[in-house]
Amino acid sequence: MTGSLDPIDAAMRRAIEASVAARGVSTPNPPVGAVVLDRDGLVAGVGATAAPGGPHAEVVALAQAGERARGGTAVVTLEPCDHTGRTGPCSQALLRAGVVRVVHALGDPNPLAAGGAETLRRAGVEVRSGVLADLAAAGPMRAWLHRQRTGRPMLTWKYAATLDGRTAAPDSTSRWITGEIARAHVHAERARVDAVVVGTGTVLADDPVLTARLPDGSLAAHQPVRVVVGLRDIPAGSRILDDSAPTRIVRTRDPLAVTAALADLTDVVLEGGSTLTGAFLSAGLVDRVTAYIAPVVLGEGPTAVRGTGVGTIAEAMRFRRESVEALGDDLLVQLAPLRSSDH
Amino acid sequence: MTGSLDPIDAAMRRAIEASVAARGVSTPNPPVGAVVLDRDGLVAGVGATAAPGGPHAEVVALAQAGERARGGTAVVTLEPCDHTGRTGPCSQALLRAGVVRVVHALGDPNPLAAGGAETLRRAGVEVRSGVLADLAAAGPMRAWLHRQRTGRPMLTWKYAATLDGRTAAPDSTSRWITGEIARAHVHAERARVDAVVVGTGTVLADDPVLTARLPDGSLAAHQPVRVVVGLRDIPAGSRILDDSAPTRIVRTRDPLAVTAALADLTDVVLEGGSTLTGAFLSAGLVDRVTAYIAPVVLGEGPTAVRGTGVGTIAEAMRFRRESVEALGDDLLVQLAPLRSSDH
Ligand SMILES: NC(=O)c1ccc[n+]([C@@H]2O[C@H](COP(=O)([O-])OP(=O)(O)OC[C@H]3O[C@@H](n4cnc5c(N)ncnc54)[C@H](OP(=O)(O)O)[C@@H]3O)[C@@H](O)[C@H]2O)c1
Ligand SMILES: NC(=O)c1ccc[n+]([C@@H]2O[C@H](COP(=O)([O-])OP(=O)(O)OC[C@H]3O[C@@H](n4cnc5c(N)ncnc54)[C@H](OP(=O)(O)O)[C@@H]3O)[C@@H](O)[C@H]2O)c1
Repeated sequence: MTGSLDPIDAAMRRAIEASVAARGVSTPNPPVGAVVLDRDGLVAGVGATAAPGGPHAEVVALAQAGERARGGTAVVTLEPCDHTGRTGPCSQALLRAGVVRVVHALGDPNPLAAGGAETLRRAGVEVRSGVLADLAAAGPMRAWLHRQRTGRPMLTWKYAATLDGRTAAPDSTSRWITGEIARAHVHAERARVDAVVVGTGTVLADDPVLTARLPDGSLAAHQPVRVVVGLRDIPAGSRILDDSAPTRIVRTRDPLAVTAALADLTDVVLEGGSTLTGAFLSAGLVDRVTAYIAPVVLGEGPTAVRGTGVGTIAEAMRFRRESVEALGDDLLVQLAPLRSSDH
Repeated sequence: MTGSLDPIDAAMRRAIEASVAARGVSTPNPPVGAVVLDRDGLVAGVGATAAPGGPHAEVVALAQAGERARGGTAVVTLEPCDHTGRTGPCSQALLRAGVVRVVHALGDPNPLAAGGAETLRRAGVEVRSGVLADLAAAGPMRAWLHRQRTGRPMLTWKYAATLDGRTAAPDSTSRWITGEIARAHVHAERARVDAVVVGTGTVLADDPVLTARLPDGSLAAHQPVRVVVGLRDIPAGSRILDDSAPTRIVRTRDPLAVTAALADLTDVVLEGGSTLTGAFLSAGLVDRVTAYIAPVVLGEGPTAVRGTGVGTIAEAMRFRRESVEALGDDLLVQLAPLRSSDH
């Protein structure tokens, strides 16, 4: 039994699930999820943050609940906002709808938006915070929280390799190291992030298009910005320069300058090649690893990482495993850097 | 719920578990497990094959059951033997003990030993075969079955590598890529197999001792034969030549000649290095892969496999995953080659 029977916990899990749909869509706003329970504790509305300019999660859920919100409870993954941005403050919308209780997982780390809990409390609403906070922090809001905390986008290094760590055969062929399910997963992830980053070496060698595609080959609704890093010119006819998605050329070899050039973005994926990956890893700028491990051996061909300058085992870069999952024949392993505080 | 409530199934699972203790000990005999149930279906005796010359599993379980075997059931992972080797035939021991029913998972593929089921049936005993046969075949008897079928020992390629497929840093340091739990697992496995195989390159570079050691550093009771493959001489003082375990030098570069030189053995582990592994993989002589994957990136240093001669992705060697397990911070992934029949 992993599920909790507590109705507030259940509503928070549902709010977190609902917020998955807002990932990639809500940037630069956080992907929040909300559930409105009526006075009997039944689900009356579910919502997630819309694209910028559209309603916040609470407003979507309240609209769905209508009169059933009166006397009910709002369960939200993030503290309701208190400021009038492009939309009115959610605290006021909740008060107008007559909810008597607000439960949120995380406090808003953004000083401009925070204060919603206090406003609600002063208006006589019961406010509970910290419910399933760890689960919410590890969920769709993770990259946004990272950016609030560090001022940098969250950088996920994603790679697909064989058991012996190769990403391609010597002739550069790599289709299909991983299977269909893993490939579909890569594209679904691309459709939820703000940018995918590669080095000039990858563009010159493989001419990838780097768009998010649906299983039928068509373009996904949301496309990440394609980012090319390095000093060399990219040929004018490169597929990465086509009009299927925006592209940024970042003419540097300094990983920190790359993150600065992407400071307006929240959720960024580093897709290779091995040289650029080595540079980001050495700079300590990888916040998460998404590894697709295929049940394949090549014994030849490029490895996933090179050029880290590691000379002896004590200099190895260590991670902690967050999850392992089977994706068809392949394994998906997610990891995060082992910070000194983890020791 | 994965367990079955059927008492015969439960007894067979217990017999398979009991046979784990016989792995490595029973060679060249199969590691068999047996459970004797009394006439009420209660467990009266449990046994596993002893070292050569000692009693078979059925005889151990019958001795433990004593008079309670009369009117009872014997549940055995392999068909009881019918021939008089160093011990009497188990079929006769079962008849003398008065069991009225014999259930076995697998038939004996060895024509010399087979016929026990027929003898028992003719004597009026009810015989059921095929119970949890797949589970028994994947269990401790796997290597023995492989050798019966192919005439060759089962060869497991075992390696420990980083996420990027490196087995050591450039200065050859590799302690500790994997954690304590994974290392203990390696030693426990060594203590259950007949031989560990490495190339001269590994001996010359790392001077490994290749014994099975307990967590306190002392030698395990059972030691595998240490096998060195290659044409070069090994220095007289090499640790692999010490008297803690037997050693065989196989002066060849032909993987088939290696398996021929180990034809008297059943369960053999290839521990590297990358060149010898590449040669065995290319020759199609790897029957199983045991991969310890550490949450580490090096970006430099030797890879787990090289020299396969693979030039393009269509020539990749493909496997199917049999299991994934967390061993502390590391992952243990077991795989088997994808034969054309699996497509
Ligand atoms: N056949 C083989 O054995 C083999 C081996 C390796 C790779 N490959 C293929 O080559 C392709 C690309 O591999 P790659 O590793 O060269 O690609 P990459 O990592 O995508 O690009 C490397 C480039 O990134 C730029 N860069 C940015 N920051 C850097 C830094 N801090 N240090 C060094 N360079 C930095 C440099 O470009 P500028 O020079 O433009 O500044 C560098 O040349 C892969 O797709 C693979 O298939 C084949
Ligand atoms: N620093 C680095 O970059 C680096 C790179 C690779 C390896 N290493 C280190 O070197 C050590 C050994 O690596 P390795 O791959 O050389 O070791 P290995 O695979 O254990 O031994 C290689 C030797 O196996 C023999 N051999 C048997 N059958 C063969 C076949 N069919 N084809 C080719 N050779 C065959 C050859 O020995 P004979 O010549 O005696 O016939 C060959 O030299 C590792 O422990 C690692 O730490 C370091």
